[in-house]
Amino acid sequence: MKKILAELLTIGDEILYGQIVDTNSQWMSVELDKIGIKVIRKTTVGDQEDEIITAFAEAEKRADVILITGGLGPTNDDLTKPCLAKYFNCGMVLNEEALAEVTEFFKSRGRELTEVNRLQAMLPTACEKVTNQIGTAPGMWFPKGNKVFMSMPGVPHEMKMMMTDFVLPRLKQTFQTPVIYHKVVRTIGVGESVLAEKIADWENSLPKHIGLAYLPSLGEVKLRITGFGDSYQSLEAEITDLTTKLNDRIGQFIFGYGDDPIEAVIGRTLMEKKLTLSIAESCTGGYLSHLVTSIPGSSSYFLGSIVPYDYQIKMRQLGVKPETLEKYGAVSEPTIIEMANIVRAKFNTDIGVATSGIAGPGGATPDKPVGTVWIAYSDKHQTVTKKLQLSKDRMINIRSASIAVLNLIRQSLPK
Amino acid sequence: MKKILAELLTIGDEILYGQIVDTNSQWMSVELDKIGIKVIRKTTVGDQEDEIITAFAEAEKRADVILITGGLGPTNDDLTKPCLAKYFNCGMVLNEEALAEVTEFFKSRGRELTEVNRLQAMLPTACEKVTNQIGTAPGMWFPKGNKVFMSMPGVPHEMKMMMTDFVLPRLKQTFQTPVIYHKVVRTIGVGESVLAEKIADWENSLPKHIGLAYLPSLGEVKLRITGFGDSYQSLEAEITDLTTKLNDRIGQFIFGYGDDPIEAVIGRTLMEKKLTLSIAESCTGGYLSHLVTSIPGSSSYFLGSIVPYDYQIKMRQLGVKPETLEKYGAVSEPTIIEMANIVRAKFNTDIGVATSGIAGPGGATPDKPVGTVWIAYSDKHQTVTKKLQLSKDRMINIRSASIAVLNLIRQSLPK
Repeated sequence: MKKILAELLTIGDEILYGQIVDTNSQWMSVELDKIGIKVIRKTTVGDQEDEIITAFAEAEKRADVILITGGLGPTNDDLTKPCLAKYFNCGMVLNEEALAEVTEFFKSRGRELTEVNRLQAMLPTACEKVTNQIGTAPGMWFPKGNKVFMSMPGVPHEMKMMMTDFVLPRLKQTFQTPVIYHKVVRTIGVGESVLAEKIADWENSLPKHIGLAYLPSLGEVKLRITGFGDSYQSLEAEITDLTTKLNDRIGQFIFGYGDDPIEAVIGRTLMEKKLTLSIAESCTGGYLSHLVTSIPGSSSYFLGSIVPYDYQIKMRQLGVKPETLEKYGAVSEPTIIEMANIVRAKFNTDIGVATSGIAGPGGATPDKPVGTVWIAYSDKHQTVTKKLQLSKDRMINIRSASIAVLNLIRQSLPK
Repeated sequence: MKKILAELLTIGDEILYGQIVDTNSQWMSVELDKIGIKVIRKTTVGDQEDEIITAFAEAEKRADVILITGGLGPTNDDLTKPCLAKYFNCGMVLNEEALAEVTEFFKSRGRELTEVNRLQAMLPTACEKVTNQIGTAPGMWFPKGNKVFMSMPGVPHEMKMMMTDFVLPRLKQTFQTPVIYHKVVRTIGVGESVLAEKIADWENSLPKHIGLAYLPSLGEVKLRITGFGDSYQSLEAEITDLTTKLNDRIGQFIFGYGDDPIEAVIGRTLMEKKLTLSIAESCTGGYLSHLVTSIPGSSSYFLGSIVPYDYQIKMRQLGVKPETLEKYGAVSEPTIIEMANIVRAKFNTDIGVATSGIAGPGGATPDKPVGTVWIAYSDKHQTVTKKLQLSKDRMINIRSASIAVLNLIRQSLPK
């Protein structure tokens, strides 16, 4: 089956200048992917007639579906509509239905229609008008041979409603699209290159209609498996089988599948096992607690934490023994063990975890360079510690150490 | 003076599939704008050789500077480097310096260099190698006539460090860019539209060579004043004068100028005044402490915090009176006052601050909807409280409440 290819074209100086982040095109990609249309390019151009028309022509050469957002406002710097009229070599007429809709839009908000907004009902004759349920600029659907151009407003919720109500159903109806199945495997505590080596033969044996991508981020590598075919069921079965084989190979690094981050997966496990958690975090300075509490419902398993940033607070508030701190220092295994055990006891939780390290840039000693971090996990059966040697960057160290603790919880939880 | 034009080219299926949002290109746009280089197009293509090479050729026709991110990983789906070698019609050789750097990178983390990572030191002969201080993929600078291609990793912090340390200075040196002077005025605790009304006449009287942009983000509005001209000194003087006038109008909302966020400005003030800070944060769950400790050197004024997430912990660990909690509830003015005073006393700091609220989505009551948050500031002279009514979104509430506390510290600190 021929793949249907799409190009996303965003129009607006505000994106080129970096005044807003384009989140529309990400959302559109995901939705198009779900109906088996492959986005092959994203392009952003400014509010310049020649740039816009050139982009139309280039996109038409490459793609079957050209989805355009932005540049539909009522002001002079909005050029998408006149450019489309020029490109399709047609005039503009007042669309009575569009005029009625925009009039009604203003009326329902108790406002008078201005002349500027009246112009929004002027549309190129080559297009089919698409109703904008929640805004003033109509969408425009331009068939061209066996291709199509669709112009939508840049305002995210207007675009999303128009895509959902009109564009996606119409595209499915117009084009015969293949079935695509995605599965994302989430791994933690292992680098991209080590992972690649461990699964090299698995990867090399993948059939041609199944692709693999490595998506690394801080402390984590996502493996995205994508299959193309005719049947959702058979792709699902095939990729489930492949995932099982992957799990045999690198199961110890896999913490989940799909969208949930490690803190959500840990949270679900704690909830299921009815276990509670407390934290004593020094070098991570509150970030680990923040990750844990970013999950809705975390109050059912997370009871609280202490951030004993100062040396005195480690002793007086948390209760680490002065002898331990004096003899081994704050960044040491004996101290981290005490921190995890004490917070667990004081907060009366099933699990206590702790961090202590040199986040940087200051605070290093000859034997403890920036990036040296001790972490610990404690429950009634065991205390587990780990020494990390992270980077020179303060924020990376804070984030990496926090994620390493979440991974330590995952590995150490009672089975 | 001829304008220097740039195109940003992002390479990666993960962006086309919508699995990540491209935030790199927004950051790059802003930085290029600061040195007077105009971004005329942003393009994203997938991991496909023909697509990538076509995009190189198209970009070269349009722009003077082509900045490429992504596709430099060690795995087979990363094609940027071989495509660049093909486009520049050159071979690849092992770059000894790059090999030494990547070897050192692994060594410093106590890991062995894998064969896959060794390949990252193979570079096209047409390029100048650019050191990646915090990652394994080197950058590549390719001069071509009076144009330049620069390839960088897609990992945001690696790209940002490379841009800041190498690319931006080198571009300024290579191209004659116009003089641009930017000043960013940082305001907090006031909305964009109120601000716009308060400074409307000031804004309308700006000369043609000076522009103003409103850049709103959570709890903050940045005002970016940009001047174009021939002399840095005269622009600086002119914009300093304009800023003084702005300060007369909206001074109470201005917390600083330039890059430093509110937590850095507060930190500097605490350090100068030799004041110490402690935090009792409930609904913000560690995020306020994280903001404070994200600033290098914060250990000199921030002694620690407690996150009394659970009701019992608020009493037993922090020491809020059971009567107060029973009579008024955890989200109340009497409770927040006790929390701020107690943490200040227990941690023996000059200032104590506290948060308690309903972050959502659960936990609301008829009189305390999601987004209800109490915050307090306490020092030896005064206790100041504030009730916030925020949004329905958990993460926005956590962030907004944390920023509101920082603003409360700014407003309440002893003069």
